[in-house]
Amino acid sequence: MAGRMLLGAFWCLMLVLVLVPCYAYKYKTYFMTQRVDHFSFANDDTFLQRFLINDEHWDKNGGPIFFYAGNEGDITLFAENTGFMWDIAPEFKAMIVFGEHRYYGISEPYGNRSLTVPKYSGYLTSEQALEDYVALLSYLRFVIEGAQTSPVIVFGGSYGGMLAAWFRIKYPHIVQGAIAASAPVRQFTDFTPCDKFGQKVTEDFANASASCAEVIRKSWGAINSITANDEGLAWLSKTWKLCKPLKSTADVDTLKAYLMDVWTNLAMVDYPYPANFLAPLPAYPVKVVCSHLTDSSHDGKALLEELFAGLTVYFNYTGESKCLDAGQQADVRLDDQGWDFQDFFEPAPWDFQAYTANCQKTWGVTPRTYMVPLMYGGWSFKAASNIVFSNGLLDPWSTGGVLWNVSESVVSVIIPEGAHHLDLRSANPADPLSVVEARRLEKAHITKWIQEFKQLQGAA
Amino acid sequence: MAGRMLLGAFWCLMLVLVLVPCYAYKYKTYFMTQRVDHFSFANDDTFLQRFLINDEHWDKNGGPIFFYAGNEGDITLFAENTGFMWDIAPEFKAMIVFGEHRYYGISEPYGNRSLTVPKYSGYLTSEQALEDYVALLSYLRFVIEGAQTSPVIVFGGSYGGMLAAWFRIKYPHIVQGAIAASAPVRQFTDFTPCDKFGQKVTEDFANASASCAEVIRKSWGAINSITANDEGLAWLSKTWKLCKPLKSTADVDTLKAYLMDVWTNLAMVDYPYPANFLAPLPAYPVKVVCSHLTDSSHDGKALLEELFAGLTVYFNYTGESKCLDAGQQADVRLDDQGWDFQDFFEPAPWDFQAYTANCQKTWGVTPRTYMVPLMYGGWSFKAASNIVFSNGLLDPWSTGGVLWNVSESVVSVIIPEGAHHLDLRSANPADPLSVVEARRLEKAHITKWIQEFKQLQGAA
Repeated sequence: MAGRMLLGAFWCLMLVLVLVPCYAYKYKTYFMTQRVDHFSFANDDTFLQRFLINDEHWDKNGGPIFFYAGNEGDITLFAENTGFMWDIAPEFKAMIVFGEHRYYGISEPYGNRSLTVPKYSGYLTSEQALEDYVALLSYLRFVIEGAQTSPVIVFGGSYGGMLAAWFRIKYPHIVQGAIAASAPVRQFTDFTPCDKFGQKVTEDFANASASCAEVIRKSWGAINSITANDEGLAWLSKTWKLCKPLKSTADVDTLKAYLMDVWTNLAMVDYPYPANFLAPLPAYPVKVVCSHLTDSSHDGKALLEELFAGLTVYFNYTGESKCLDAGQQADVRLDDQGWDFQDFFEPAPWDFQAYTANCQKTWGVTPRTYMVPLMYGGWSFKAASNIVFSNGLLDPWSTGGVLWNVSESVVSVIIPEGAHHLDLRSANPADPLSVVEARRLEKAHITKWIQEFKQLQGAA
Repeated sequence: MAGRMLLGAFWCLMLVLVLVPCYAYKYKTYFMTQRVDHFSFANDDTFLQRFLINDEHWDKNGGPIFFYAGNEGDITLFAENTGFMWDIAPEFKAMIVFGEHRYYGISEPYGNRSLTVPKYSGYLTSEQALEDYVALLSYLRFVIEGAQTSPVIVFGGSYGGMLAAWFRIKYPHIVQGAIAASAPVRQFTDFTPCDKFGQKVTEDFANASASCAEVIRKSWGAINSITANDEGLAWLSKTWKLCKPLKSTADVDTLKAYLMDVWTNLAMVDYPYPANFLAPLPAYPVKVVCSHLTDSSHDGKALLEELFAGLTVYFNYTGESKCLDAGQQADVRLDDQGWDFQDFFEPAPWDFQAYTANCQKTWGVTPRTYMVPLMYGGWSFKAASNIVFSNGLLDPWSTGGVLWNVSESVVSVIIPEGAHHLDLRSANPADPLSVVEARRLEKAHITKWIQEFKQLQGAA
C-alpha cells in the first residue's frame, strides 16, 4: 500500500469581511486493491481504489472512524467540501477516511477503457461501490492497531448521502450510523412525482422575486423564436459570448439543457456565503442572479440580454471565463461522464423510453427501472435504524428526501434555509441558525450511536 | 410463463401403527426469466427459474404469501418436506410459493455447462439467489390480482434458513418476517469454534448409549489397521458389501469420509418418526443404529462387523440396496455437486488451505474467507428485526445457530428433542411437545408480522 502526503486544497472566505480561519485539510493518500466484481466468481479482475486518511485527532484505543462514502467525483473534491467531518473530528477523537467511488477520480477499474463498453463499464453500480467500502473499512479495522473496536459513522451528501443511508440499511454490522445529507432516496419511480423537482427549483427563484422566475419562464420561448433563423443564431452566440457558436436546432437544445442545469445547480448550491462547489459563486447566488432579472416585461432580445446578466453570475463569477461553454457546467472534478451512466433521475418531463434509448445508445446497457426500490426499498424505511436524513428546503433534491421521522432512530432533520447538503459544509459565521441546530442534532445522534456500540461490545 | 400441474410426491407413515393422513401436496409449476447477474451490467444472460405455487386457500384480497427460499436441491424435495407451511396455510389464508435455488434442480443458468468453469459457475452465490427471490416475489405481487398488498413471510431450513434470515436482513422492504429453521448463520470463521460441530454429533450418539459412541470412535483405527494390506481391503469390501471394492488408501479415505457423512446425517435427521429426507430411515434412527453398537469391547474385524450392522440402518433401511455406495449418501435430489462449490462449512478439522486448494482444483475459484460475515454479519444481529431462529438441540448445525433472544423481534426458539429443522416438517402424532410449542410460537410471530404490515399500510 503506497502512501503519499497531499495537502488538501486551500480555500479562504475572502469575500465576507469577518475573521474566518483558512482551512487546509491534511490527509494521506492510499490505494487498496479491490475486486471489480464482489458478487460473483466469473470475473477475477482487481483495481486500485483511492482513499484518504487523517488520524491526527484519532483516539488509538477504539476511537470512531468517520467515513465519507464517496460519490460521483474526485474524492479530493468531497474532502474539501465536507468541512463538518473535519470540524467535529477533534471532539470525537475520530479518524477521518474518504473513500473514492469506483469509476470516478483516479479509481478507474479499467483505466481509460473503463467507460467504453459494458464489459468494462458494467461494474459501475452502487451495490459494487458499497462492497468496496465494506472491504475497505474491514481492512482498515483489521490492519490499524486500535481500530478493531472502532465504531464507524458514515457520512455522505447527495448521491453520497444515498450511499450512506443504504450502507447502514444493508450493512448495519459494518457501520453503526449514517448521516445522509440531502439524499434523494425516494426520487425513484413510484415514490415521488417527477414534476416536484422542477417545481422546487422554480419556487426558489420565485421566492427571490416574482419577476425573476417569470423572466426565466419566458426565456424558453424567446430562445426558440430568436434562434429560428441564422441571424438570430449568430446574434445569441455573440451576445451570450458562447465558446461554440450556435449552428443548428441541436445546438440550441444543448444550450437549453445547459440552462436547465444552471438553474438547478443554483438552487442546489444556494449557500449563505461564497463557495465553490459546483462553480465559484457568491453568497446566496439565487438572490444575486435574480438581482439582474427584475423586468419581466421584456421580450425577445431584451429579455435574453437581461437573462445573460444573471447567467454571468454562474459561468463567470470569477471574471476569468473568456466564453460560455454550454458543454460544461460544473466543477471539472465532478465527473459528468460516469454520472450519466449512473444517473437515474432527471428533472421533469421524465421520459423513460427516451432515457432507455439514450442509455442503450451511449452505454450499450438497458436501465433497470426498479433496481433501486427493489435493492434498497424507499417506501417506509421502518426496518432501518441509526440514520439521520437531513434536507435543506431550498434544495430541489429535498423533494425526493425523507422529510419525516420514521422512528426514534431514523430521523429527519429539516433545514428551512438550507441548500444542497449545507450541513456537511464547515461551520461559517453566515450560517443560518437552522443549520447550526441541524449539526447539533447530528452530533447528538452520532454520540448515541457510538455509546450503543460500546455498550454492545461491553455486553459481548 | 408455461405452467403444468404436478402432483406432489405421495408419502405415508406406514410404519407407525396410528391413523395418520397421507399427504398429497398439490402445486402448479412455473418458470420465470431471471438475470444471471443482478449486480452488474457486464453480463446480460438470462435463465429460467422454476417455482411452485399453491393458492387454493389464499385470500385473494391481500392474503399473505408464504415463500420457501429454496436451498441446495430440487425444489420439489423441499415442497414435500416442509409440511409446516402446508399445514398452516389454510388458517392464514396464505398462498404457498416455493422458489428453486439457481444451479439446483432444473434451474440451471447454463444447462449442463453450468458447473464447468467460473464463467458459467461463478454466479452461484447466495447474493444472486436472494436477488432471484426478490425479482420473483416482486413480479408475483405485480401480476397476481390481489397480491399487491400481500405480506410475505419467508421460510427456510438449513442453508435455506440462512437464506430466509438474510432475506429479511437485507430486504426488509420485500419480506415482512422470516422463519429461519436450523440456520447455522454463525457457522463461519471467527464466530464458532470448528470442533463444536463434531462434538455435537458425538454427543447425540453418546446419549443413545456410551458403547455406541465408543464403537464409532474405535472404528477409525480398526479400519486403518485392517485395510493396511490387500487381504484386509478385500475382506472389508466383501463384509461391508461395497459396490466398489477398496483398492487403495484413497478408496479408504473416501469410505471414511462417507462414514463421517453418515454419522452427521443421522444426527441431523434424528426425527421421532420414519421419514425420508436425506435417506429413508426409521423413527429416531440414531437410537436404532446404536441398538446394533452395544459391545465396545470388540476390536478389529469383530468391531467392523458390529459397525456394519448399524450402518445398514442408514444405507439399506428399505432393504432394496444391493450394495453400499460410498460415493452417494443422501437423497439424489439434494445436489452434492453444486453444494460442494457453495459449501463453506466442514466438520472439523478445518483446514482452510486444503479447502482453498481443492476449490481451485475443482472449480477454478478461490473461496473468500470473510464473504458471509462481511455481507450478512453474524456477530449480533441487533439491527435486524422479525426473525425466528429455531434450532433443535439434537442437530449438529445448532452449534452455529442463534440460540438466544437478540431482541423482541429477533428471537430464538429451542427444541431440545428436535433434529434438523424438525419444526418445518408436517405435524405428526409422534412429535415431542417442544416442537408443537415451537410451531405455536412461530405462528404467533407470523401473525404479529402480518398485523404490523397491515397497520403500516393502513397508516400510509
